[in-house]
Amino acid sequence: MKKRMVFGVVGGDIRQGKLAELLAGDGHKVHMFGLEKLQDLPNLPQAENLKEALKADCVILPLPVREDNGLNMPFSTQQCSLDELVKTLQPGQIVCAGMVPPYLALAAGEKGVKLYDYFAREELAVATAVPTAEGAIQLAMEELPVTISGARVLIIGYGRLGRTLAPRLAALGADLSVAARKYSDLAWIEASGWKPEHTEKLDEKLGRFDLIINTAPARVLNEKQLLELNKDCLCIDLASRPGGVDFETAAQLGVKVIWALSLPGKVAPVTAGKAIRDTIYNILQELGV
Amino acid sequence: MKKRMVFGVVGGDIRQGKLAELLAGDGHKVHMFGLEKLQDLPNLPQAENLKEALKADCVILPLPVREDNGLNMPFSTQQCSLDELVKTLQPGQIVCAGMVPPYLALAAGEKGVKLYDYFAREELAVATAVPTAEGAIQLAMEELPVTISGARVLIIGYGRLGRTLAPRLAALGADLSVAARKYSDLAWIEASGWKPEHTEKLDEKLGRFDLIINTAPARVLNEKQLLELNKDCLCIDLASRPGGVDFETAAQLGVKVIWALSLPGKVAPVTAGKAIRDTIYNILQELGV
Amino acid sequence: MKKRMVFGVVGGDIRQGKLAELLAGDGHKVHMFGLEKLQDLPNLPQAENLKEALKADCVILPLPVREDNGLNMPFSTQQCSLDELVKTLQPGQIVCAGMVPPYLALAAGEKGVKLYDYFAREELAVATAVPTAEGAIQLAMEELPVTISGARVLIIGYGRLGRTLAPRLAALGADLSVAARKYSDLAWIEASGWKPEHTEKLDEKLGRFDLIINTAPARVLNEKQLLELNKDCLCIDLASRPGGVDFETAAQLGVKVIWALSLPGKVAPVTAGKAIRDTIYNILQELGV
Amino acid sequence: MKKRMVFGVVGGDIRQGKLAELLAGDGHKVHMFGLEKLQDLPNLPQAENLKEALKADCVILPLPVREDNGLNMPFSTQQCSLDELVKTLQPGQIVCAGMVPPYLALAAGEKGVKLYDYFAREELAVATAVPTAEGAIQLAMEELPVTISGARVLIIGYGRLGRTLAPRLAALGADLSVAARKYSDLAWIEASGWKPEHTEKLDEKLGRFDLIINTAPARVLNEKQLLELNKDCLCIDLASRPGGVDFETAAQLGVKVIWALSLPGKVAPVTAGKAIRDTIYNILQELGV
Repeated sequence: MKKRMVFGVVGGDIRQGKLAELLAGDGHKVHMFGLEKLQDLPNLPQAENLKEALKADCVILPLPVREDNGLNMPFSTQQCSLDELVKTLQPGQIVCAGMVPPYLALAAGEKGVKLYDYFAREELAVATAVPTAEGAIQLAMEELPVTISGARVLIIGYGRLGRTLAPRLAALGADLSVAARKYSDLAWIEASGWKPEHTEKLDEKLGRFDLIINTAPARVLNEKQLLELNKDCLCIDLASRPGGVDFETAAQLGVKVIWALSLPGKVAPVTAGKAIRDTIYNILQELGV
Repeated sequence: MKKRMVFGVVGGDIRQGKLAELLAGDGHKVHMFGLEKLQDLPNLPQAENLKEALKADCVILPLPVREDNGLNMPFSTQQCSLDELVKTLQPGQIVCAGMVPPYLALAAGEKGVKLYDYFAREELAVATAVPTAEGAIQLAMEELPVTISGARVLIIGYGRLGRTLAPRLAALGADLSVAARKYSDLAWIEASGWKPEHTEKLDEKLGRFDLIINTAPARVLNEKQLLELNKDCLCIDLASRPGGVDFETAAQLGVKVIWALSLPGKVAPVTAGKAIRDTIYNILQELGV
Repeated sequence: MKKRMVFGVVGGDIRQGKLAELLAGDGHKVHMFGLEKLQDLPNLPQAENLKEALKADCVILPLPVREDNGLNMPFSTQQCSLDELVKTLQPGQIVCAGMVPPYLALAAGEKGVKLYDYFAREELAVATAVPTAEGAIQLAMEELPVTISGARVLIIGYGRLGRTLAPRLAALGADLSVAARKYSDLAWIEASGWKPEHTEKLDEKLGRFDLIINTAPARVLNEKQLLELNKDCLCIDLASRPGGVDFETAAQLGVKVIWALSLPGKVAPVTAGKAIRDTIYNILQELGV
Repeated sequence: MKKRMVFGVVGGDIRQGKLAELLAGDGHKVHMFGLEKLQDLPNLPQAENLKEALKADCVILPLPVREDNGLNMPFSTQQCSLDELVKTLQPGQIVCAGMVPPYLALAAGEKGVKLYDYFAREELAVATAVPTAEGAIQLAMEELPVTISGARVLIIGYGRLGRTLAPRLAALGADLSVAARKYSDLAWIEASGWKPEHTEKLDEKLGRFDLIINTAPARVLNEKQLLELNKDCLCIDLASRPGGVDFETAAQLGVKVIWALSLPGKVAPVTAGKAIRDTIYNILQELGV
């Protein structure tokens, strides 16, 4: 990767601001566009218009790149359609964006733009698991009238999030069970010293817990399961839409559920910006830029 | 200890309510007094007056027992002076209270009341360190724009609180330094795999940290030290009055300081109530009751 | 899975003996064959000959199933060719074996025997990583004149073994670096609080370490790398044949290398036998037996 | 402490050799005496006789300083009585020694020698707990046919050694119980997430464990207790003379007991030497040398 590149950072939220600052701190030339209403706006050049903004070795678009039908620019007075964006990009230009919709991928491909989705990269997903896990622990600490130390905690799912949460909760002193479906995941859970549970045989055991954190992308807590819960049990659902809990029934039953989405940007925007920067550097490294 | 005792739980806050509930859950006979305005008031008998309230094998007074010059009863419409309290107690009666002032100890002694200060017991101090540590971690997670994972953290002091905080922060991925004065504490810190620092040689190193948690009962961060801090550094002061930070100067310099007192009752009242119960059981056990 | 099955445990080493004992302890009917010279032979029925041995709901053959061209039976005075074995098995019979060679798989298939390779199952590989990791730690403790606490340790590779070793060494106080090639593995390593290193950029950093444990199935330490090592550095190679170190050059250079193979059976045969039992139960469960 | 001092390192074992090497590596002038038969003898000047050896700003005598009635010099062909030693020392000279007997302290005091017992210092005891703990873990790994991961382990005593062992065994995956007598220690054990046990109420629970490590300086395992043990249970006794186990009865009952003394010098002499050096530096620092 070249020592000194020109980056155009366009749209997004505080994470994009922090990202711009970090890139500049690494010695790159950075200009921004579409972030002018951001509190703590970095002291970096602002492009006058989209065309100027896109004059860069590498353009960085936000995560997610699209909001409604335009570019995701909540901290700007301006708007920009995806069509306008693609029209203004140059063939051969390197563009990094998060959660690229098929329409944009197609249009960029036709134009010859080199568009990379940093959100699709495994290392970003891993790095994002840490602020998500910390956000979930913060929520649990805020809401529970007991300490994590000594609390009976169940994590459902042993993917990236489960693997990041489990050692942290255990180290805080939780009496930890982790539910998974695959025998190999159950072997990992046991090898780590936690209590393994088959996700499909959970039902009658759900009453034991003070805190349940769902990380599985599936509806795991339906009425049947919710009825089993101890009345003071807190549920934190980290599954993306449509979520892992039957929220309506939970509300009727008086079960306390928090559906926590997009934690990284909320609880640790600087860390989230840093993770995006590292991923973009990896993309550029692989491109041999 | 007898299987079934009569406890009178008098005054205090939500911790006393939880304590009453726990005692009843263990099979004891419990009545309360001076907690009637408590939200989530346990469904237990209320004594009609102080005299009825004190008819018990063991009377449990709040932590702290005194507020201004009377009994600490913020969730009651009633008031009660310490003199009236002592007058109503019986010679030979067992009374447990938190932070007993010398005047009360003396008056109780003259009357022949067996008064024990549960707050003076080491096991309660240890058990209380856990909710304090979790409260501090929660505050750090709420306030910092970065994750604990990867943050450069300094704990000042290696007493009970330092020892409780350090393994938790390290397990959350902090790059951890711990400052102490005693060589043996420094040896413990090193043996635990953290970076030891002499408290007296900290000054020029203070600029390295993202988070500083003071647990030492001493004014450790004066103007000279505050000037060294990195501008985004968060300070959490857990020292009791008068505190470990020159708050006025910190405010002038724009250093973010949180003086966090009485965390256990705030962040984990159930755990705090449980710790008081366990300590009272230990007292009764030692008395051979 | 049925409560009470008949198992025939044939050949192998102490792990097979422990496995037979565990199965019997779970209430199953178990007989053994080809283990008669084992020290601590379980007090269970011995089959008189191969034919009797194979009369079972489930036959368990050793890990590895083949030694030279016959069945692996080092603790027996008898011998048995794979042909004879297949001839004696019944069509439809369930047989579990470890490291099944293609020839045996084919012959069993033709005969209609239901042959399952438990060694190919991910959960066994995971469960086996724990005794391997403990064996490697034991070797390091035996050989190093310093404690793991404070030692500068490098793990090469972040597969199952690397993931099992890393948290253990870190918890013992090692100053831990982990080398991997994939960006997502590097992200995991960083998220866990250890120092990430690119395997391809290790060379000039190798001189820093007191202990290097190779878990990668590749020749990672050649002459060039060995020349960089600190003279007191210990290398433990956990890679299976042909190994990850140029052993000849290492010997010439005076580098201390231990090539540690088959640790589970050596350091924790009971744990190894238990892991095989659990895996066989999973196979039977999936078969709906 | 002065940048460059003259140290005379006299007698002792491999730890003294390593200590001499470390002092020289820090830039000090070092000569040795009474270590000439040591394998891996450091390449440092050898004093010709005791008188030359003691010409130093600081003389370092071994741990323990006395063996039988003379100076502890197992790696020397020479011998030296304590009387001769004191006679040759100079009034006002700084001497550091380990486990100083009263006779030597008195004689040195009369002569005006500044004699310091580094073994009496808390920081050395703490630093020594780490190699002792690792040595005990190594023994357990060597002797047990199961992994530490999943083993049911009891540590008796929660002093320095118990506190060092407990987090390590827990991190290796042990199902950990810790027995202590003091309520505050039990509170620490519980706050750390392990199972607390009253030492006096252990008897009927002893049959549950796969491994028992005694760290308490008391005879805790007598016939009554030994009879309760599970037949495969391994006992490691770290108590100094007369030890915490009735060894004779254990032998009769077939209980496997390892009485492990002086582990640091055996399992990690370099670390042990380093700990002594750090302690001597602290002594000199306090003296303002």
